Amino acid sequence: MDVTAALRWIGSIDGTLELVDQRLLPIEFTHLNIDNIPDLYDAIKTLAVRGAPAIGVSAAYGLVIALQQDGLSDINAALKTLQDQAAYLATSRPTAVNLFWALNRVQTFAENWVTGHAGAGVDEFRQAVLGEAHAICREDIVMCKRIGEHGAAVVPEDGAVLTHCNAGALATAGQGTALSVFFEAHRQGKSFKVYADETRPLLQGARLTAWELQHAGIDTVLICDNMAGWLMKQGKINAVVTGADRIAANGDAANKIGTYSVSVLAARHKIPFYIAAPSSTFDLSLATGAEIEIEERDSREITHPGERQWAPEGIAVSNPAFDVVDAADIAGIITEHGIIEKPNTERVAQHFAENG
Amino acid sequence: MDVTAALRWIGSIDGTLELVDQRLLPIEFTHLNIDNIPDLYDAIKTLAVRGAPAIGVSAAYGLVIALQQDGLSDINAALKTLQDQAAYLATSRPTAVNLFWALNRVQTFAENWVTGHAGAGVDEFRQAVLGEAHAICREDIVMCKRIGEHGAAVVPEDGAVLTHCNAGALATAGQGTALSVFFEAHRQGKSFKVYADETRPLLQGARLTAWELQHAGIDTVLICDNMAGWLMKQGKINAVVTGADRIAANGDAANKIGTYSVSVLAARHKIPFYIAAPSSTFDLSLATGAEIEIEERDSREITHPGERQWAPEGIAVSNPAFDVVDAADIAGIITEHGIIEKPNTERVAQHFAENG
Repeated sequence: MDVTAALRWIGSIDGTLELVDQRLLPIEFTHLNIDNIPDLYDAIKTLAVRGAPAIGVSAAYGLVIALQQDGLSDINAALKTLQDQAAYLATSRPTAVNLFWALNRVQTFAENWVTGHAGAGVDEFRQAVLGEAHAICREDIVMCKRIGEHGAAVVPEDGAVLTHCNAGALATAGQGTALSVFFEAHRQGKSFKVYADETRPLLQGARLTAWELQHAGIDTVLICDNMAGWLMKQGKINAVVTGADRIAANGDAANKIGTYSVSVLAARHKIPFYIAAPSSTFDLSLATGAEIEIEERDSREITHPGERQWAPEGIAVSNPAFDVVDAADIAGIITEHGIIEKPNTERVAQHFAENG
Repeated sequence: MDVTAALRWIGSIDGTLELVDQRLLPIEFTHLNIDNIPDLYDAIKTLAVRGAPAIGVSAAYGLVIALQQDGLSDINAALKTLQDQAAYLATSRPTAVNLFWALNRVQTFAENWVTGHAGAGVDEFRQAVLGEAHAICREDIVMCKRIGEHGAAVVPEDGAVLTHCNAGALATAGQGTALSVFFEAHRQGKSFKVYADETRPLLQGARLTAWELQHAGIDTVLICDNMAGWLMKQGKINAVVTGADRIAANGDAANKIGTYSVSVLAARHKIPFYIAAPSSTFDLSLATGAEIEIEERDSREITHPGERQWAPEGIAVSNPAFDVVDAADIAGIITEHGIIEKPNTERVAQHFAENG
């Protein structure tokens, strides 16, 4: 099975960051080798690398690349360079929480390291920063793998699973979140089929999920979003697994637009609906999903599918990027710690109490 | 208000058939003037004119055009020409029931006319054929108008209605079926908004419905199919009206893929769901919708939105063209005779008993 993560580091402190160029998928599968900050900035900005965890890990490695320049006289100068480049990289995707989180984590680590290693050399410092970037990457890989291991049980033997959008390896340094569930079930030798919603308007399902699953040798069928209900009615779908972008304390889960409809259709047909997401996706400061703000995006995404104009000039458009699934319609939330069955405020709190 | 039917006849027996060239919509609004059979054949085949009623009426006028040639020595020769051209036009869209129906109707009319008018001249015959084509056209216009008049009451004042695919004026010689309901409500001075599903894979909602409604001055918002459920959840949609391709004796209604999902989402949110279709759409030989066969269409429609490849080479695709709404989820079926409320086998039979 061939699972393709979004990125990997090649070599030592003088190494490079290898990214899958996701702008060309699924037509071309090529890599970028990043060895300077402007190229990394551009790769993040133009979505060559996308997916919150993948962006975060890329940025962490970016701070290793930031230190690959001549003339860093000592570790204080190196720290100053790292801080400056972190501030610069933070502007590449202004709303990417994982980006800020990863940059902050490496920066705080670096500041503490310099404080604690007054006489150390620049290469020793660079080695320590690479170690921290590796740690962030490793944690992401382990998190993905555990979600898959916990979730594989929900994939029905000889059945079919539906997914929406892309919560795949291409969004992480590991094997993804929702797709990790399928990769792990496949690795265990289960026989099953995955229906992938194409996911209008940006077609992440058609472009990325279909490619990842096909690449991994999983039996995959691409459908338009409006076909899922009809397939359910005919008994062709036995479970649904999607990712999530944000989960409230009661288990209400925000994900790509269309996920709410899938959850309602699943409820009507008594098909279990699962969310697979790291525990870091929970925002326990939000009591319910009603507090989650929904981004409205550019109308052109809808009027110009395939980059050609299909809708009349000047037509009004509604383009919410996300919607929110009711916790009551969720059979379980799969995290790296296990499955929160029939999530509600009490069960979510218990999950966090048990798993720190 | 500017409602644009798919076609109109211009002039006398020597006139021409004016078609909206629907291949260019919504980018360009231009007409074709058809004055020969090969051009009409091509217009039907390449979808310059589409929609079952519009194709039928066009074909009827086509048989008027068939008689616009020199050298028709007498009405028997003219009848022979009409029969030959009817057989030829019938091959332009092999599965179009209205096409065969209209050609047969004009041909049978012509045969009876010739039998009853042994000594008549060719021009008199041509006049009679034009009269029959006009009758078919007029019946379609009246049918559309009546559907709109009966249906306008379901459009909520100051509310919003959702529609899926295109059951508009562009599919008929009149003002459409589902869209006729909106045109009529608008004509009555009602204030309301229409959400138009783009309707993947062929985007009839984005290309045709959005254009027709915008053209008529109706407040219209284009959305992706997967957004309707979320708008319903937020209370933004008060009723749904769609067309139908075939309706069983119990009221189960086949329509463009995605209509089933819309009906389930409407049921969840307690939003009334209406079908607007002529009574000729009923196939009373089918007890329920389970007997309706669903066409599976070319995978390329899904993999190449906007005529550009977006999905990986070789991916499997499911592309059902239609689905079937459960009668139990239908608040009413609007025909030219009135509304069949909460349709079931008994109420459908009663509707036909009362309206011949």
